[in-house]
Amino acid sequence: MPSYRLTLEYDGAAFEGWQVQRGAHRTVQGVLEAAITQVTGESVRVRGAGRTDSGVHAEAQVASVALAPEREPEALRRALAGVLPDDVVVRACEAAPDDFHPRYDAVGKLYRYRIWNGRERSPLRRARWHWLRTPLDLEAMRRAAGALEGEHDFAAFQAAGAEVATTVRRLSRLELRGASGAEIEIDAEGSGFLRHMVRILAGTLIEVGQGRRDAGSMQALLKSGDRTQAGKTAPAHALTLVRVDYPDAR
Amino acid sequence: MPSYRLTLEYDGAAFEGWQVQRGAHRTVQGVLEAAITQVTGESVRVRGAGRTDSGVHAEAQVASVALAPEREPEALRRALAGVLPDDVVVRACEAAPDDFHPRYDAVGKLYRYRIWNGRERSPLRRARWHWLRTPLDLEAMRRAAGALEGEHDFAAFQAAGAEVATTVRRLSRLELRGASGAEIEIDAEGSGFLRHMVRILAGTLIEVGQGRRDAGSMQALLKSGDRTQAGKTAPAHALTLVRVDYPDAR
Repeated sequence: MPSYRLTLEYDGAAFEGWQVQRGAHRTVQGVLEAAITQVTGESVRVRGAGRTDSGVHAEAQVASVALAPEREPEALRRALAGVLPDDVVVRACEAAPDDFHPRYDAVGKLYRYRIWNGRERSPLRRARWHWLRTPLDLEAMRRAAGALEGEHDFAAFQAAGAEVATTVRRLSRLELRGASGAEIEIDAEGSGFLRHMVRILAGTLIEVGQGRRDAGSMQALLKSGDRTQAGKTAPAHALTLVRVDYPDAR
Repeated sequence: MPSYRLTLEYDGAAFEGWQVQRGAHRTVQGVLEAAITQVTGESVRVRGAGRTDSGVHAEAQVASVALAPEREPEALRRALAGVLPDDVVVRACEAAPDDFHPRYDAVGKLYRYRIWNGRERSPLRRARWHWLRTPLDLEAMRRAAGALEGEHDFAAFQAAGAEVATTVRRLSRLELRGASGAEIEIDAEGSGFLRHMVRILAGTLIEVGQGRRDAGSMQALLKSGDRTQAGKTAPAHALTLVRVDYPDAR
């Protein structure tokens, strides 16, 4: 069946995450499937590159769908734009290889966590930044972040109860960008991420920046493999899936 | 009476503009006055540097208030932070000269108008960017903007029906910043602005960018003094008051 690769942008605030769940939950996958059904008359299942949590945003999530008759991708994109709600859009639609799988084929993902480190809360940033009033020690956070880069067993940075074949992941980049003054962005780039991993990384770095955790303790933390030893899961509303990368051939 | 200068940030989406109006309207001035009354027990009138329209945001609006007993500015700021709603905050509070007037003393203001010029609507930008699908001719817009800089009679760029002593204003800078790709920001900086002036400037530049108006026609438009000759008033939700400047002494 002809496959299509969809690039999606969404504001996660009013979604209970990506994945369809039992019961009456508004999810990105569910809303997208309903829109495709509305446009094509076909009952479909879409696959996503990353199962973003409730409240997490995406600038460019990638999804795939197989549709029985071949369709012109641009016409499909436009038709979906017409029926999708305000908080989600298909930015691009391309024909994809039949066996394209947005998650298994992805070679990299970039997540961005946003911290507003101003003395006062910021009304204009409240929807997508996590406010921390006390000035963070960025130097210490950068040292800790550097120690987390590379291939490690990230079991300590996985939501309790998650089941997965291996907790080894390659975190190719964990970088603090002190964009301007009180705006701090944490970029996490890697081949794949465990459940809540970016938010636990952010929460752990925050504790380092607050002086509540030593920047030199990351190796021991990784080695422990113990979720209870890592930092709190930072709030979801400040996290955005920025990009998913594929090999040229996909 | 001791005077205080308040620097305010607000998300304009749920406000019917700055200025208190008759009837049950939620305005920034009204919400701020209520908060000050709650904190001090005094019935007050605050003054603002700019009367932002319904839906317009502010990163740093400036207001003043006079209060009978002298107060420690930082304590006042913190007390207000505790009672103001989520969409407005007092970023700074300082003692000001008794005769400080945020509007008359201001020597400059910077407004920013945001245009999302992507092929598709952007869910993550829908709250604060004006979406225009057709690619704008930035070069033509820059030429037109340059012709509008300087001291002119901006009668053609004033909301119909507004009454004001003089419509001459100095627009020291009208600059297009092509931040990144489809994000276009128009910075308008000047000593003062007429009612809807920045939004009419933006609407006129947009028509130039769409090829519906000649970049060389700005002089004639200024000379006409005729509101009906200028462009449409661009939507309010994409406008932000970024900064108000005062002489050092104020």
